Amino acid sequence: MPRHALLLEYDGRGFAGWQRQDGQMTVQQALEEAAARLALSQAPSSAAAGRTDAGVHAGGQVAHLDLDRPLEPARLRDALNVHLRPHPVAILAAAPVAADWHARFNATGRAYRYVILDRPAPPALEAGRVWHVPRRLDAAAMHHAAQVLVGRHDFSSFRAAACQAKDPVKTLARLDAARHGDHVVIVAEARSFLHHQVRNMVGTLVRVGQGRWTAADVRVALDARDRAAAGRTAPAEGLCLTGVTHNPAPLWADG
Amino acid sequence: MPRHALLLEYDGRGFAGWQRQDGQMTVQQALEEAAARLALSQAPSSAAAGRTDAGVHAGGQVAHLDLDRPLEPARLRDALNVHLRPHPVAILAAAPVAADWHARFNATGRAYRYVILDRPAPPALEAGRVWHVPRRLDAAAMHHAAQVLVGRHDFSSFRAAACQAKDPVKTLARLDAARHGDHVVIVAEARSFLHHQVRNMVGTLVRVGQGRWTAADVRVALDARDRAAAGRTAPAEGLCLTGVTHNPAPLWADG
Repeated sequence: MPRHALLLEYDGRGFAGWQRQDGQMTVQQALEEAAARLALSQAPSSAAAGRTDAGVHAGGQVAHLDLDRPLEPARLRDALNVHLRPHPVAILAAAPVAADWHARFNATGRAYRYVILDRPAPPALEAGRVWHVPRRLDAAAMHHAAQVLVGRHDFSSFRAAACQAKDPVKTLARLDAARHGDHVVIVAEARSFLHHQVRNMVGTLVRVGQGRWTAADVRVALDARDRAAAGRTAPAEGLCLTGVTHNPAPLWADG
Repeated sequence: MPRHALLLEYDGRGFAGWQRQDGQMTVQQALEEAAARLALSQAPSSAAAGRTDAGVHAGGQVAHLDLDRPLEPARLRDALNVHLRPHPVAILAAAPVAADWHARFNATGRAYRYVILDRPAPPALEAGRVWHVPRRLDAAAMHHAAQVLVGRHDFSSFRAAACQAKDPVKTLARLDAARHGDHVVIVAEARSFLHHQVRNMVGTLVRVGQGRWTAADVRVALDARDRAAAGRTAPAEGLCLTGVTHNPAPLWADG
């Protein structure tokens, strides 16, 4: 039962998130159905590094998939892409991995990007890909306040009620906010995140960008260890899982 | 009858191009219907700098629109955006212009960007926005060959049969091709272009990027003054009208 790692890109608008759910199309279901159509596996089973929510995009999601027979990685990639149509998912690369390698449990880092469009006009070209905030934000103040959150903390104030993690303590390696034209781009990196953590941090930083909060208010919210103390959950559409690191890393094939 | 210039962004997938056509939704019709709903004009009439084809996007289209009564530019922008929903068009800015100012006839330059995604996997996040070419192109060779086309030439070999221009001689100010990761981005600038000229030049440059043609072959194709001598028409979805310059330039208001 050869196991393969897969590097995936998807448009979250087409799915009710990564994880299989009754009655709704998910990325996991689309992938497993494509593998089944390929007759690569009788009961395809997959897992992903990041269990993205409905509407959240991915440019660098990593999953693993078990096959009944070995297949050359570039052929696996191309065959899955044919059978994934018309779902907005693409397999960018495939790599053979050990039978006990796990996309989630071997992951050592996740990187997310959150994009805010802060101009009066709504998005036409980027609809469904950005959070539209009609008034200009202070990106420098957002970046400054974000540094309060970097490091090892109890992130209970930024954790969804439905979060299943045992421990609310996480180490945030990076949280940068920067202006690029009419966009504020926020990059978050950590070994792992709590459920909704990135979106809850973004919602809080937007309060700072609007001049309603300071970095000191963000610290108070963090220390409160209470979801009600922090800002709103930013919409899913601005979020993209851009990359995952693993140990050992899959050897993605070229071609 | 105050005339306003409008700066527009739109997703070309939602439209049968800019120009009004019976039985199909166009950007011009969406704009004029929004103006009519606003009761800003009894018989709204508009014109655009670039009459983009079906599927072609715009990030910096410029149009003009006549109103029955004066309106502050930021209010005009916001009100049109409300009434343009759910069409994928946004008014980025508005500016009052003289009654004889014309979005098309006062235009002094047009800039287009064409994006090719040259990787094996089809686009998931950029579907409808890029031309997918599965095999890697030689972007440096494309840029080199593109310079053959820069300058004043008879572009008959790159002109659609339906082109209504009186004169096939145009001055191409810039044609650059450059690699950005998995993308080859082509930027074309001129005072004006023939119908399909950018897409026909891109289709020809892709032959060079595939190693099938050299810069000398592009020169032979140009000199032939025959559409059949050049490459195929690249698909509409990769093309975006990114900007237009005018004399006099509209004074876009902030806020």
